Amino acid sequence: MNTGDITFRTRKWVRPEDLNANGTLFGGSLLRWIDEEAAIYAIVQLGNGKAVTKYMSEINFVSSAVLGDLIEMGLTATAFGRTSLTMRAEVRNIFTRESILTVEKIVFVNLGEDGKPAPHGYDSITYDRDRIPVKIANAQN
Amino acid sequence: MNTGDITFRTRKWVRPEDLNANGTLFGGSLLRWIDEEAAIYAIVQLGNGKAVTKYMSEINFVSSAVLGDLIEMGLTATAFGRTSLTMRAEVRNIFTRESILTVEKIVFVNLGEDGKPAPHGYDSITYDRDRIPVKIANAQN
Amino acid sequence: MNTGDITFRTRKWVRPEDLNANGTLFGGSLLRWIDEEAAIYAIVQLGNGKAVTKYMSEINFVSSAVLGDLIEMGLTATAFGRTSLTMRAEVRNIFTRESILTVEKIVFVNLGEDGKPAPHGYDSITYDRDRIPVKIANAQN
Amino acid sequence: MNTGDITFRTRKWVRPEDLNANGTLFGGSLLRWIDEEAAIYAIVQLGNGKAVTKYMSEINFVSSAVLGDLIEMGLTATAFGRTSLTMRAEVRNIFTRESILTVEKIVFVNLGEDGKPAPHGYDSITYDRDRIPVKIANAQN
Amino acid sequence: MNTGDITFRTRKWVRPEDLNANGTLFGGSLLRWIDEEAAIYAIVQLGNGKAVTKYMSEINFVSSAVLGDLIEMGLTATAFGRTSLTMRAEVRNIFTRESILTVEKIVFVNLGEDGKPAPHGYDSITYDRDRIPVKIANAQN
Amino acid sequence: MNTGDITFRTRKWVRPEDLNANGTLFGGSLLRWIDEEAAIYAIVQLGNGKAVTKYMSEINFVSSAVLGDLIEMGLTATAFGRTSLTMRAEVRNIFTRESILTVEKIVFVNLGEDGKPAPHGYDSITYDRDRIPVKIANAQN
Repeated sequence: MNTGDITFRTRKWVRPEDLNANGTLFGGSLLRWIDEEAAIYAIVQLGNGKAVTKYMSEINFVSSAVLGDLIEMGLTATAFGRTSLTMRAEVRNIFTRESILTVEKIVFVNLGEDGKPAPHGYDSITYDRDRIPVKIANAQN
Repeated sequence: MNTGDITFRTRKWVRPEDLNANGTLFGGSLLRWIDEEAAIYAIVQLGNGKAVTKYMSEINFVSSAVLGDLIEMGLTATAFGRTSLTMRAEVRNIFTRESILTVEKIVFVNLGEDGKPAPHGYDSITYDRDRIPVKIANAQN
Repeated sequence: MNTGDITFRTRKWVRPEDLNANGTLFGGSLLRWIDEEAAIYAIVQLGNGKAVTKYMSEINFVSSAVLGDLIEMGLTATAFGRTSLTMRAEVRNIFTRESILTVEKIVFVNLGEDGKPAPHGYDSITYDRDRIPVKIANAQN
Repeated sequence: MNTGDITFRTRKWVRPEDLNANGTLFGGSLLRWIDEEAAIYAIVQLGNGKAVTKYMSEINFVSSAVLGDLIEMGLTATAFGRTSLTMRAEVRNIFTRESILTVEKIVFVNLGEDGKPAPHGYDSITYDRDRIPVKIANAQN
Repeated sequence: MNTGDITFRTRKWVRPEDLNANGTLFGGSLLRWIDEEAAIYAIVQLGNGKAVTKYMSEINFVSSAVLGDLIEMGLTATAFGRTSLTMRAEVRNIFTRESILTVEKIVFVNLGEDGKPAPHGYDSITYDRDRIPVKIANAQN
Repeated sequence: MNTGDITFRTRKWVRPEDLNANGTLFGGSLLRWIDEEAAIYAIVQLGNGKAVTKYMSEINFVSSAVLGDLIEMGLTATAFGRTSLTMRAEVRNIFTRESILTVEKIVFVNLGEDGKPAPHGYDSITYDRDRIPVKIANAQN
């Protein structure tokens, strides 16, 4: 399969509530943001709102950020399993493009109505939004 | 000046904490998200982290969203004043592209070190990130 | 109809989590607060918990607030439509009474059990709390 | 001294994020709200932003609230010490006026610039907002 | 019955979002934390997830905490009623062991499926986790 | 060096705000909690409030949790570097003791006053709280 370049989308402005007691960006906020962004990316790729985090490979906190910094998060799919999707993720400073955090593999699993892993039927990235979850597709008709 | 099309970036997954007591997306969360996104857009355009919301034109809540929906927010600059920047904003459903909220004008004001309006020196959109706030530019040298 | 003066009720103490990266009150927090206050006001006037934000007229951010400031929010009904309620809103500093934000029109729509606009049957302000939502009225008997 | 009746001001709409795992209003949210409201009341009475919670008498959780309920919080000063202020607090349902929680005594202490208890100079309730903190008074001149 | 010593478990790192406008730990955050910790302790003792706060005896805010402080919360059961559980609670600084807040009595009530007080059947502390809520016990078989 | 067993301390009650749109525990909340717990553990071991997340090894989301579940987080130091501390972490269900998430290595770096890595001077676990940060030690004298 072809894997695309990382597309940076969601942006954050580091506010006081995102700081740890040292005055730098709280690692926990960063992890929370990247997990939410990965969930959104996975839902768009798999056309299924029931997709959950299964695995993250090692995470390097390359640099930090301070109050008022702008950061952006990016992802790309790197592998489609039968019931899973693997992504690569990066968080970086908007202006300096300096990397803040990278995760080589984030694996989400596609769940069926019964909450168990279910085949998703895709094997390549979509750059469109043509994989519409059933619930939403029905609501449109 | 040329104004560009809206670029949709930041994405949100509607979670339980974003719902009002009716089980639909809380208008207040939506307003909070669009204001933060506008702040980020303004900072990138003005190359100044000290930019604040001054005015929003009328807001139409065209449709709502429910738990699990994916939405995305987009902005484009529509006018550069001497000390201000005017933007157009839209929030929409990622899959259906149905509009959730539109704001024709969001005006941010560029502030100087003294917290008062200050000229920003720009008169057109940048699609690059070449307007680096002084604080960050200094830190790079 | 008679429209009353604005009644200021809900108060906020500006805490660190309400600040933007400039150290002034985050516009998004302000918008979130006023939307919640308007929802509460509408529910009391319409006697229906299912009322949602439909429209806001232009918003002027007249002045800001800083850490530790006390602010209060006020509303009054200005028009009763068949299925809607229009309100005027103001947020101000408790001590100085300086205006922070004004919104001439906030329109809420009354929803029926099916989630669609439904007549509310009122055409003037109540200063009492005699318009009790059906759900609560039943629970009392 | 004369103590006044409780004045109910700040209102809350019980949203999903305020519920405990039983689906009723989380006691911790309630306590957080009443403490913030007491802080605001104390600052208005003492004309000093540096006032902190020192003591709460026993708290009875008389009834609870559920998703979508409207509640309001009220306070009145019951005693002015040399460096302290004692208040009585109640939280109730807006429509039914049923009491949710009462606290007979909440004591705040007035702090000086050095963070230690300092005389506040008042011995009765103000119904006006004429006790303006020094910082704010200076900013107005 | 024998009551045990307080066991300190849950720990918090005081972050910017926990501060009041004075820069010290917000009393409301503290109350929220202790209520959640008491709920967890009660559920483990009563083997029932449906347990709610009914009463707190007077609370002394003995000392405060500042940004970056580490604190820990402790509880012990002091009395088992037919449908209730009474606990003693303390919050203290991890390093100095200085007490921040003490509550002599926090009473939780055990609720049945119908949301009304129900006998819990216990009269002493468990130091094990052998009182497994029915829902969880069933899921294991 | 001897590494100790994992000590489980901080406990969480899964509330509505911790759920993702599937109704199961949001992975991002879990990551946020474990990072905060690791920060607290590191500060106690290194006697320094200025310690930041540098690295996490792969994370397995072994099982999930639902509304009302009780979970607990545990850590143990596994290696002391010159300026770093390596920990092993686990999150599990309180009753079933079923593992929810494990992280073999979480590395924190000890920072000096200048924000750069600094030697911490320790090479083994303390089970006491005798490594008191300088700031706090001074305040006690």
